[in-house]
Amino acid sequence: MARVVVDVMPKAEILDPQGQAIVGALGRLGFAGVADVRQGKRFEVEIDDSVSDADLERIAEEVLTNTVIENFSVSRVAE
Amino acid sequence: MARVVVDVMPKAEILDPQGQAIVGALGRLGFAGVADVRQGKRFEVEIDDSVSDADLERIAEEVLTNTVIENFSVSRVAE
Repeated sequence: MARVVVDVMPKAEILDPQGQAIVGALGRLGFAGVADVRQGKRFEVEIDDSVSDADLERIAEEVLTNTVIENFSVSRVAE
Repeated sequence: MARVVVDVMPKAEILDPQGQAIVGALGRLGFAGVADVRQGKRFEVEIDDSVSDADLERIAEEVLTNTVIENFSVSRVAE
C-alpha cells in the first residue's frame, strides 16, 4: 500500500469565484493582509503497490482533473 | 508577500461520499488497485508579510475549515 496526494488547482487564467468570496469574507471579518486566495481540491489516494506511476498520472489527468480549467500535481507520500 | 497552503480534509471518522464515488468510478473505468480516495480542499493563500502565524492559524481554523467534520494543516511555501 502506498499513499499518494493529487492536488488539483484552477489554472492561473481561470477566475476563481470561491477564492474571491473568501478574500471578501476575510476582509469583512477583520483579517487584513490577505491578497489572494485560490481554492482547489486535494485527493488522498491509497493504492496497491501494483499501480504504476503511469497509471497514477492517468487517474489524476483523466478522472480527477478537468484539464480544460485545472492543473494537477501528483506526489507519493513517504510511508 | 508570502504564499501559504492550507489543506482541509474530512476527519477520518467522517464518511466521504465524494471519495467513495471516485473509487467506484475508477473501478468501472478499469483502473485497478485503488483502495481508497478521500477528497478535501486545498487553499493557496497570498499574504502580506504582516500576517502572523497566529493570524494564519485563525484564518484556517475559523474561516476555511468546518472543525466539526474537517481537519486542517497550514504550511508556508518557500519562495
